[in-house]
Amino acid sequence: MDLFTGFLFRGLDQDQLAKIGAITTEISMENGQRIFVEGDEAKNLYVLKKGAVELMTSVEQNLELPISILRDPGDIFGSHSFIAPYRYSLSARCEEAGSVLSIERSSVKKLMVADRGLECIIMRNLAEHFLDRLTETRQELKIHFRILFRSTRS
Amino acid sequence: MDLFTGFLFRGLDQDQLAKIGAITTEISMENGQRIFVEGDEAKNLYVLKKGAVELMTSVEQNLELPISILRDPGDIFGSHSFIAPYRYSLSARCEEAGSVLSIERSSVKKLMVADRGLECIIMRNLAEHFLDRLTETRQELKIHFRILFRSTRS
Repeated sequence: MDLFTGFLFRGLDQDQLAKIGAITTEISMENGQRIFVEGDEAKNLYVLKKGAVELMTSVEQNLELPISILRDPGDIFGSHSFIAPYRYSLSARCEEAGSVLSIERSSVKKLMVADRGLECIIMRNLAEHFLDRLTETRQELKIHFRILFRSTRS
Repeated sequence: MDLFTGFLFRGLDQDQLAKIGAITTEISMENGQRIFVEGDEAKNLYVLKKGAVELMTSVEQNLELPISILRDPGDIFGSHSFIAPYRYSLSARCEEAGSVLSIERSSVKKLMVADRGLECIIMRNLAEHFLDRLTETRQELKIHFRILFRSTRS
């Protein structure tokens, strides 16, 4: 349960964390292994246990942009498995061999039906998380517009 | 209650919609009037009743980019008032005189404390909404990267 320190679990009590702990499966990963691919159905959430994972997005057929590298035990990825339309928005690849905890979407759904409080907290955490990412992404987009705007004026 | 058809209220039952209806205040708006400004504390959610509202974002001191125009009764804006850090991410200006229903953040919070089911549904709707916006914004950013990538190769 020491691993459940990521944004998604913020505010859950020890009992709720234990319920989450009970539905995880540990999976080892090798260097270079694809954990999931952008656009695929998002069936699992992952919590990093050991090693490192790179997240990236495909811009063109031969161009993938790195988005971030997760190295801290407890880092969460694949949170799109918790929310419609249940599609991974990024690809995840093992950057340094180790292991992850995998949590099936269907198992979490059962927990949420049985414990609405747990559902509320997770949904609030997800909404905050996506809003953070949205704010960041809009800032990046503004930088591009600013460059464009300045180049048309000079 | 016919106005509560926007994304945020999806899945609420008639009782819950009536509770929301009871905490709204109708406010008239004039052409060109600023309803809120990007970066301000988000104290209210708005539901369009009549007229039109333009949403925009500031890129430079003298450059605001239009994001969208809301014209349909029931359209929602200011949803950042429901989620931390409670800051409007866009500015809203009246584009065609009319009226809006305003819902105070503090009143909604009271409803959510009293009805966790209502909170769950709204938080799930918000998470889905921000994820949709995030996906759209990332797509726009990719278009910029693609242009950049092609220009460096040609």
